[in-house]
Amino acid sequence: MISERMKKAVVNGSAIRAMFEEGKIMADKYGKENVYDFSLGNPSIVPPESVKNAVIDIINNEPEMLVHGYMNNCGYEDVRESIAKSINKKHGTCFSFKNIIMTVGAAGAMNITLNTILDPNDEVIVFAPYFGEYDNYIANHQGVKVMISPDTQRFSINFEEFEQKITAKTKAVIINTPNNPTGAVYTEEDIKKLAQILTDKEKQFGTDIYIISDEPYRELVFDNASVPYITKYYKNTFVGYSYSKTLSIPGERIGYLVVPSEIKDFEETLAALSVSNRILGFVNAPSLMQRVAARCADDTSDLAVYAENKKILYDSLTEYGYECIEPKGTFYMFPKCFIDDDKEFCKAAKEFRLIIVPGSTFACPGYFRIAYCTDKDTIIRSLPSFKALADKYKQI
Amino acid sequence: MISERMKKAVVNGSAIRAMFEEGKIMADKYGKENVYDFSLGNPSIVPPESVKNAVIDIINNEPEMLVHGYMNNCGYEDVRESIAKSINKKHGTCFSFKNIIMTVGAAGAMNITLNTILDPNDEVIVFAPYFGEYDNYIANHQGVKVMISPDTQRFSINFEEFEQKITAKTKAVIINTPNNPTGAVYTEEDIKKLAQILTDKEKQFGTDIYIISDEPYRELVFDNASVPYITKYYKNTFVGYSYSKTLSIPGERIGYLVVPSEIKDFEETLAALSVSNRILGFVNAPSLMQRVAARCADDTSDLAVYAENKKILYDSLTEYGYECIEPKGTFYMFPKCFIDDDKEFCKAAKEFRLIIVPGSTFACPGYFRIAYCTDKDTIIRSLPSFKALADKYKQI
Repeated sequence: MISERMKKAVVNGSAIRAMFEEGKIMADKYGKENVYDFSLGNPSIVPPESVKNAVIDIINNEPEMLVHGYMNNCGYEDVRESIAKSINKKHGTCFSFKNIIMTVGAAGAMNITLNTILDPNDEVIVFAPYFGEYDNYIANHQGVKVMISPDTQRFSINFEEFEQKITAKTKAVIINTPNNPTGAVYTEEDIKKLAQILTDKEKQFGTDIYIISDEPYRELVFDNASVPYITKYYKNTFVGYSYSKTLSIPGERIGYLVVPSEIKDFEETLAALSVSNRILGFVNAPSLMQRVAARCADDTSDLAVYAENKKILYDSLTEYGYECIEPKGTFYMFPKCFIDDDKEFCKAAKEFRLIIVPGSTFACPGYFRIAYCTDKDTIIRSLPSFKALADKYKQI
Repeated sequence: MISERMKKAVVNGSAIRAMFEEGKIMADKYGKENVYDFSLGNPSIVPPESVKNAVIDIINNEPEMLVHGYMNNCGYEDVRESIAKSINKKHGTCFSFKNIIMTVGAAGAMNITLNTILDPNDEVIVFAPYFGEYDNYIANHQGVKVMISPDTQRFSINFEEFEQKITAKTKAVIINTPNNPTGAVYTEEDIKKLAQILTDKEKQFGTDIYIISDEPYRELVFDNASVPYITKYYKNTFVGYSYSKTLSIPGERIGYLVVPSEIKDFEETLAALSVSNRILGFVNAPSLMQRVAARCADDTSDLAVYAENKKILYDSLTEYGYECIEPKGTFYMFPKCFIDDDKEFCKAAKEFRLIIVPGSTFACPGYFRIAYCTDKDTIIRSLPSFKALADKYKQI
């Protein structure tokens, strides 16, 4: 008999599975090419050639006991040093291997961080709309989620409410920019304001408040949009990164956590993160893929595809009357529904063979998410359905 | 500032690091070849050639979006089916892909299992001596550890105390055979007795009590010792397995969990385990290595090396007067110290350049662990030191 907590999780999981199953049924009924599935954030473009080359070269030329063996729970030092250099080059930071911990994806990075800093009932702030999995990560380590309502003007931060909800129990604030589900990127001004508020509150309460910056979409930006590197603005910052989206290798579970030397109790924090990697069951990030990531740290898949998809969808949907902020990054957009009930709206979308995700999944009802990590042809063929869906409600 | 719980974990971690550091200092002082480090359970023999061949063939010939992409959180169906067939062939079981969940090593398997079944304050029984990491895995999911004292005659189960300590709150029993640190293998009679006691107690309390069988050493047995497959004796059994030791790929974090169809609430349990893989941050076992494991499921490294090491060490140590049960598997043995204080004994061993681990690390004071996953030459050269250590105490 499974635990009470997991019984609830299974029921929620069933709802998502039901959506997939319905997608399959629709594909059988209408033909796969006539169903426009925008539900999943799964990279649609192949990894760069360098991934394949790296795997083969490592397997052929590096010692197998090194490549497949145990290393420090934080990862190989040479891998961490290469990645530190790659970050420094891109962002003008000064990290060394000591500031990098290799992790089982960004999800692993988030979990070792929360395990390290949270005492039971510590509060963690999230900004709606947000990736629902944060609820689970916080609960795993007995934290309490505190949600800030959406800023639906820019999908940045509702600063007024944020300031009010910080308490002496606030231990961390999770941010995600470029953002899933909105595609918004926080400006430098946003980050500075956020950092100032936290600095003031740390003083007021005599506490440490951490920013946990979840950055799997950092490289997925359009028109060279600038994404400020958070450690430059606030010292108590952890940055979680994943190669899943940049290199199109989400199944490999490879990412890292950045821990700046300026963070409170740096050495002890590093030791606790290393222990967390071990005791949570990860032990270390997969070894071969650590070495691949080091070699491919400066490469990306052909991300221009997502920019092209974004342009087509954004231009067309706004023309059809959808209200939407223009994404600056990721492969998501988050338009407003034509009715308040987003679940009802997404149900109606199925009449037009569109599979889209209700905003309430991201704690932001009245909106819906489109994941446009798909081929351009599907995007173009889906446009009449989006138009028909809009027309259905505009007529009312 | 890190959490109170992690502060303690860091202090414990420092003790282990201190041992490593001391080993390094000794190596600098006496020369690496004159220090006999038997502290770590790290495979010393190369992976079978099939691992390399599988990686290269998969990278060259399977579609890259499949190889590196997301799949069901339980793993690829074809991989799970291959592994089920491999188990069936070896153990006469009847598993299909539905009974196999790919995991981030055995540590991942243990954690998703405990996350799935434990409500807060549920009790989990462990048999001393045991792998200390179980304490962390149980605490991760808010369980309470209940320890049974060692059976120092055979290092099997102290059945009398076991029966007394099962309560209405007992949710699981962790077993590990072949055993770290003793090398003991439970007999079929042991397993039958264990199963009968649990069946009776389930009836008595009207509860479900699970066996969690942690089996990273299943293939590491000597003289064809038989290791009963637990699902054949008790239906509420989870089996956690890792390829770390068998294929000498511990850094890759690849293993699986077996969930027999007869387990209580099978479908719901499977769904909860899948959700656990996702929400604990693993998401799925590393994708390329899943596909490698499927191809190499019937292969092993040249495990005969460990049998040879065991014979040399066991024959010599018993000749020198050490009391020890003869290991039937793993690459560990667990002799009795010549004095009650095992920490003092291991400290004294350093005078003879021997690095061994006190039994109290495994909740069994008065003993010490030797990890003989090292080259034969080191074993042979270490023998005079083991003799001198024995002589030191025999003279008293």
